[in-house]
Amino acid sequence: MSKFEAIKQAAYRANMQLPELGLVLFTFGNASAVDRKEGAFAIKPSGVPYAELRPEDMVVVDFDNNIVEGSKRPSSDTKTHAVLYKNWEHIGGIVHTHSTYATAWAQAQLDIPILGTTHADHLTADVPCAPVMNDEMIKGDYEYQTGFQILEAFTARGLKPEEVEMVLVANHAPFTWGKTVEKAVYNSAVLEELAKMAYLARQIRPDAPRLKDSLIEKHYERKHGPGAYYGQS
Amino acid sequence: MSKFEAIKQAAYRANMQLPELGLVLFTFGNASAVDRKEGAFAIKPSGVPYAELRPEDMVVVDFDNNIVEGSKRPSSDTKTHAVLYKNWEHIGGIVHTHSTYATAWAQAQLDIPILGTTHADHLTADVPCAPVMNDEMIKGDYEYQTGFQILEAFTARGLKPEEVEMVLVANHAPFTWGKTVEKAVYNSAVLEELAKMAYLARQIRPDAPRLKDSLIEKHYERKHGPGAYYGQS
Amino acid sequence: MSKFEAIKQAAYRANMQLPELGLVLFTFGNASAVDRKEGAFAIKPSGVPYAELRPEDMVVVDFDNNIVEGSKRPSSDTKTHAVLYKNWEHIGGIVHTHSTYATAWAQAQLDIPILGTTHADHLTADVPCAPVMNDEMIKGDYEYQTGFQILEAFTARGLKPEEVEMVLVANHAPFTWGKTVEKAVYNSAVLEELAKMAYLARQIRPDAPRLKDSLIEKHYERKHGPGAYYGQS
Amino acid sequence: MSKFEAIKQAAYRANMQLPELGLVLFTFGNASAVDRKEGAFAIKPSGVPYAELRPEDMVVVDFDNNIVEGSKRPSSDTKTHAVLYKNWEHIGGIVHTHSTYATAWAQAQLDIPILGTTHADHLTADVPCAPVMNDEMIKGDYEYQTGFQILEAFTARGLKPEEVEMVLVANHAPFTWGKTVEKAVYNSAVLEELAKMAYLARQIRPDAPRLKDSLIEKHYERKHGPGAYYGQS
Repeated sequence: MSKFEAIKQAAYRANMQLPELGLVLFTFGNASAVDRKEGAFAIKPSGVPYAELRPEDMVVVDFDNNIVEGSKRPSSDTKTHAVLYKNWEHIGGIVHTHSTYATAWAQAQLDIPILGTTHADHLTADVPCAPVMNDEMIKGDYEYQTGFQILEAFTARGLKPEEVEMVLVANHAPFTWGKTVEKAVYNSAVLEELAKMAYLARQIRPDAPRLKDSLIEKHYERKHGPGAYYGQS
Repeated sequence: MSKFEAIKQAAYRANMQLPELGLVLFTFGNASAVDRKEGAFAIKPSGVPYAELRPEDMVVVDFDNNIVEGSKRPSSDTKTHAVLYKNWEHIGGIVHTHSTYATAWAQAQLDIPILGTTHADHLTADVPCAPVMNDEMIKGDYEYQTGFQILEAFTARGLKPEEVEMVLVANHAPFTWGKTVEKAVYNSAVLEELAKMAYLARQIRPDAPRLKDSLIEKHYERKHGPGAYYGQS
Repeated sequence: MSKFEAIKQAAYRANMQLPELGLVLFTFGNASAVDRKEGAFAIKPSGVPYAELRPEDMVVVDFDNNIVEGSKRPSSDTKTHAVLYKNWEHIGGIVHTHSTYATAWAQAQLDIPILGTTHADHLTADVPCAPVMNDEMIKGDYEYQTGFQILEAFTARGLKPEEVEMVLVANHAPFTWGKTVEKAVYNSAVLEELAKMAYLARQIRPDAPRLKDSLIEKHYERKHGPGAYYGQS
Repeated sequence: MSKFEAIKQAAYRANMQLPELGLVLFTFGNASAVDRKEGAFAIKPSGVPYAELRPEDMVVVDFDNNIVEGSKRPSSDTKTHAVLYKNWEHIGGIVHTHSTYATAWAQAQLDIPILGTTHADHLTADVPCAPVMNDEMIKGDYEYQTGFQILEAFTARGLKPEEVEMVLVANHAPFTWGKTVEKAVYNSAVLEELAKMAYLARQIRPDAPRLKDSLIEKHYERKHGPGAYYGQS
């Protein structure tokens, strides 16, 4: 049995959840799970329909994008996953979808503003939208540069990837992550809901204000602070 | 067997209905049922996925927020429920969701205007949006203050909670109630539909007028008046 | 066996289709089927949940609103059905829903403009919105007057109910009809789709023009003209 | 057994997928599959409900619209299919739907702008909207002229039907095609999603810009270029 069995199973289950949660149409998405000890991650093969996907189809790739195990071509977004795993050492899983509302915000090239506590319960910043790449980066190693585009957006804004576990890539679509790939899937579903709520709120009232700071802080502490009291400990 | 068995079963069933009705994503909601004789209510534990929830997981809490029965931590919104039960003696159940359209109105910090008879069949006022708390209240006992924010919104507007069984909390999301928790669940689904219809009507015609008074009164009498003729008596 | 067995079964099946087609929430709708020979129609009882509805629960009512058979109270909209059956002799079934998009147009008090051939395949006019009643009518026999409000809207515009089988009642919601109650159900689903398409088209382009006359005529003839070639003859 | 068995089965399966994918209501759509050797295609009969449809109901028609096999009347859109098959020799299947968002763009008489990579992964141009016909064409052989309207839109814009496999017909609805009818069905689902995403993006930000050229080219090459690396080769 493969020493990567655990991450292949985890990546498989996560990929299968994406259509169940209504987050992907056909093959428009991919999930990966990392094995930090082995320095490699399991990811969905490119272009295989979800209905035909099997755990053994997962492709194992190292952080420099070399295939370690598997006979299929990995997802075309694999280099983006590799860059994030290599640079953000605490994350255990990554999910990429083209979910409808989050993608619409990415196409509008706008951050998703924090308008309510549903958002604040998960992150205490606007969901950042990484800017469109310059033409040199696009013509070069595109998916690799997408990863750096995300890293730089976090650096430029002083965001911590362990607190803000989601990003939009302008003109493209969202990426989410987490300590586990299960958490990354959860974050993709949450992001789609936040994107829809913010869309509707701004349609109802175009100047709907961002959450005020005291409320953002309260929700942050409630979940992440020393006296956290949300969920079962 | 627990003397709270009836309310634990009722609260459990109500909580399970919320995802079935499309009103909650993951654990974004909670329902409670009260036992007026015992002065306590059963509520969903915090952060437990609906798929794993069992009737015996319900936590029983009194109106001063003391746990009376149950080993899990109750929902983080428990204090809000307690305040409403303590002050509104006729209500038998409370439901809190982050349903999409109602939450969008709460994020816009606007009442949902009464634009049609679907609304008037259920309440003869705009759905009130309780204002954002001041910073002192937020920094203090937040969920407890949320309850008072709701009470004060009703007092300030002269609304009766037995006639208006729903409210939005600005920046947050809706709460609904009723004589039973089943009715509170029903009201949450009705509210989401009213929120969607009002959203669409105002998108189609931004100055779509509120229902005229004669029509509001007619619908009120039809359901609540002395000669009520709606439903099976 | 009741001599009304056929219309009770037809009304029952039609009512059950409404939630299946996503056209009603809880009990927000009703369907009826008429027996022209007996001068009576079978309609859903008021306020009974669809899950509990049985064919024998249907109430049979004559065109002057007298209960002919059945032990339950008929739908609160029964008088509206009676007025339409009495005055439009060719119709065999009526459906009333509060379907979301059609109701939003009714709340906006606007006709649904004919913007495309999906609409023109079914009716060659805007879907008319009957105006809000005056206060005298509302205070009087409200549901009875709703029927007349519909009749008058058709007379005022010179519309034929056998060609335009749907209407919005301002502030309220849609009614549809047809030669059979099955056709009336079909028309309710079509109306909801037309309402959604017109909503979206006008959001995309607020001045999206009505279909030009030559195209309206072509689609009318294709389905209703002497050389009709749509469907199996 | 019919020599057209293969295309009748393919057309049947494709037609059945349309309601499963949420692309058609009732009978508002049709799919066809061509046999290039025999110069004929199998298409859905007109107005038959999907629930009753059987493979043997498919009607086989040649490129001049003569029925070659089958006892039912073919879809009213058959002439449009025939014109496209006759003039575009590389296509193997055609699908016509009235899917909601794509039809809304057609009713707005606007191209669907290329706003993101979801779009660019499938076509590197705006989805063209063929203009409304002039009155002479409408009064003449309408469905036949619809085919020419599509051909002319492609010629006028210098588009290749093997690269842009979808079109809107103004006031009407979309047509899609592909090397196989399965691909044409896939394209109909993709088009509906692109239409929804572009709608939302432009609602969020009315001046959301088209994708820049370098990004369009990158995505085109990624899928169609000599070094294509998307999907399993």
